[in-house]
Amino acid sequence: MHYFAYRNDELYCEDVPLARIAAEVGTPAYVYSRRTLVHHARVFRQAFPEALICFAVKANSNISILHTLAQEGIGADIVSGGELFRARRAGVEPENIVFAGVGKREDEIAAALKQDIFMFNVESIEELNLIQRVAQELNTTARIALRVNPDVDAKTHPYISTGLRENKFGISMDSALMDYHYAHRLSHIQVQGIHCHIGSQLTTIEPFIDAFKIIRALALELIASGIDIRYLDMGGGLGITYEREKPPLPMELAHAMAPLMEDLPCTLILEPGRAIAGNTGVFLTQVLYTKQTEEKRFIVVDGAMNDLARPSLYGSFHDIRPVQLNTSGEEPVKVDIVGPICESSDFFARERLMPACHHGDILAIMSAGAYGFTMSSNYNSRPRAVEVLVDDDQYRIIRRRETLEDLIQHEELPQ
Amino acid sequence: MHYFAYRNDELYCEDVPLARIAAEVGTPAYVYSRRTLVHHARVFRQAFPEALICFAVKANSNISILHTLAQEGIGADIVSGGELFRARRAGVEPENIVFAGVGKREDEIAAALKQDIFMFNVESIEELNLIQRVAQELNTTARIALRVNPDVDAKTHPYISTGLRENKFGISMDSALMDYHYAHRLSHIQVQGIHCHIGSQLTTIEPFIDAFKIIRALALELIASGIDIRYLDMGGGLGITYEREKPPLPMELAHAMAPLMEDLPCTLILEPGRAIAGNTGVFLTQVLYTKQTEEKRFIVVDGAMNDLARPSLYGSFHDIRPVQLNTSGEEPVKVDIVGPICESSDFFARERLMPACHHGDILAIMSAGAYGFTMSSNYNSRPRAVEVLVDDDQYRIIRRRETLEDLIQHEELPQ
Repeated sequence: MHYFAYRNDELYCEDVPLARIAAEVGTPAYVYSRRTLVHHARVFRQAFPEALICFAVKANSNISILHTLAQEGIGADIVSGGELFRARRAGVEPENIVFAGVGKREDEIAAALKQDIFMFNVESIEELNLIQRVAQELNTTARIALRVNPDVDAKTHPYISTGLRENKFGISMDSALMDYHYAHRLSHIQVQGIHCHIGSQLTTIEPFIDAFKIIRALALELIASGIDIRYLDMGGGLGITYEREKPPLPMELAHAMAPLMEDLPCTLILEPGRAIAGNTGVFLTQVLYTKQTEEKRFIVVDGAMNDLARPSLYGSFHDIRPVQLNTSGEEPVKVDIVGPICESSDFFARERLMPACHHGDILAIMSAGAYGFTMSSNYNSRPRAVEVLVDDDQYRIIRRRETLEDLIQHEELPQ
Repeated sequence: MHYFAYRNDELYCEDVPLARIAAEVGTPAYVYSRRTLVHHARVFRQAFPEALICFAVKANSNISILHTLAQEGIGADIVSGGELFRARRAGVEPENIVFAGVGKREDEIAAALKQDIFMFNVESIEELNLIQRVAQELNTTARIALRVNPDVDAKTHPYISTGLRENKFGISMDSALMDYHYAHRLSHIQVQGIHCHIGSQLTTIEPFIDAFKIIRALALELIASGIDIRYLDMGGGLGITYEREKPPLPMELAHAMAPLMEDLPCTLILEPGRAIAGNTGVFLTQVLYTKQTEEKRFIVVDGAMNDLARPSLYGSFHDIRPVQLNTSGEEPVKVDIVGPICESSDFFARERLMPACHHGDILAIMSAGAYGFTMSSNYNSRPRAVEVLVDDDQYRIIRRRETLEDLIQHEELPQ
């Protein structure tokens, strides 16, 4: 459920017309719905009341978003020292933070140990050895899970990109038992879980359940061999509806998993990112020009690939809606919606049938709450967009728009 | 020519070992060679002594880089108000600034008119009308070229090919004559040139010359019809050597163009970006882990796709060299060089034969001086890298590394 809907031809976020926000804070702008965020958090909490739900901070790392989720009892799945810093500033408790990622630096490991985070999801034996050494130096113990790679068949599940043998993530199932016993013997490592993450934007339950069965079997084997596995971290990956996808609901996943959990003395950890934040946000952009060439009709908008990279980087589909419906009776037109950046890759939609648009119109690029602002850059010396959080009939700026001075503040100026 | 070379098994930038810079400023880091930059600027000035050379700021927008080029008589090809701001701060004179881009906003046009820049490269009639209106309001005149689209296939990557009919750039040849006469009649527009840009990283002269012949014919036709065309802006696009490409030298291009310029009463404008900056810079990154799976050997480094996006975004090849040669006699190994970001797309090289690498080694990702830092982001809450300029046996920080506090400075913190 999300709270973006038309009323009297105006697109609202909760009880605020998006046109009003655009007029008051300018464009481009990210606008998030607090109600939607809270609703999604609660849907996960209700589906998995016993689980630790850790939001994947990389999806949306704004402090106010993380703070809102923390108030709903949602923790943080972090992948860097920067995300640790953000999560703590947002009020996420260390016991609700898990730390994943193939490239943890020594200083990041030390910071996480000093904060006493809940668990490291360890991606290699080399990393395990480094964590052991840093924990020893700090005279503490690191709680860990090993990230295992279940090698779930990509042919039947083409969206899975991180759970295959040939990628950089995790350790292989073949060496898992040996690696767990190695970890178990380390003096400053406390083995407590298994971690697994098979990919993002999954739209069926099957690959998830396939992977879970493999992890479950490993857990039973480890427990039988004397290793105290208490947590199964199944990562994130539930998809959302960008176009016509029908991803499983958290409750459906919970029902499918329940029989497989019954005889396990383990608590589940989940790391949803996109499924919580994706449909909580839209990206507002203004039409600068409409341009008819012999071949095509272009809508040039003031947002660009530096603001929202997914269409360029992944060829992703985002629904695009005018914030004020065109009631003039003009026919819809097939258009390319493009940004001002000097690359052909700077587009939001191609050959898309859209209501007729004119200079000054505001468009909402939907489902932009995850992997939107977090991937944005200053390419073409474009200040990054403002972020706004709507709460019922109010809104507030949760990150101000960058200025031109901001762009150069760390640079040396000529004498 | 560039000044990155091994001496006694150590990779130097000019007279400074890169290992020393990495040790002193940390990694990841961008390191530029001032000598190389100046050399490249002079090569263009010598090949085209009569031309206005405008550096494409989007390739590398650091103030110190722009300032160094300005001192060599190089102007700025800008595509946004942010780039105008940077160029002016760097000391580029307005009469050496040309402004291109399909999405110029009204405030950006006004800023450029107030600064009295040399020329707008206009991408559509809609934009022309807006410039006319803004110039009228400011009681000034805008000097312009129309960007025409010669429909020449640059035979480069489709994302950076810009001269084809189906893309968003420029006006078509078919309507050019009519559009020029329309522009000529506008009260606050002074038509003075033709602009054309067919793409980036061109490795042969032919598409450039093909396009120039078309532009030349249009210029002669316009002049004959009473429109005072004095400038032919042929854009940028000369390629560089990333791997084994053999792009034409500026002097070769100059010789090929000379006979076509002879009878034209026009000054040439060129907009090199990559050809000037690409091989002036390297990206330094440290090996965090080496990880052997059954399938592959991975080198996990502390730089990532947020720092240098080209391999992920375009599948680009960058040569990668250790800053200290491995003299242990170990065999080279085929490896994937990957970053810490939690996406399979985060890589710098795949299946690359590399000298044996170990934890702590510093690698230089070559040819990173263009479209490197300018495309970088804070994805995964990673502070952006430091930028360093080497000058003979000295170096200085020209943009300091971002801190964790920098990441959140514009955000609202919870009460």
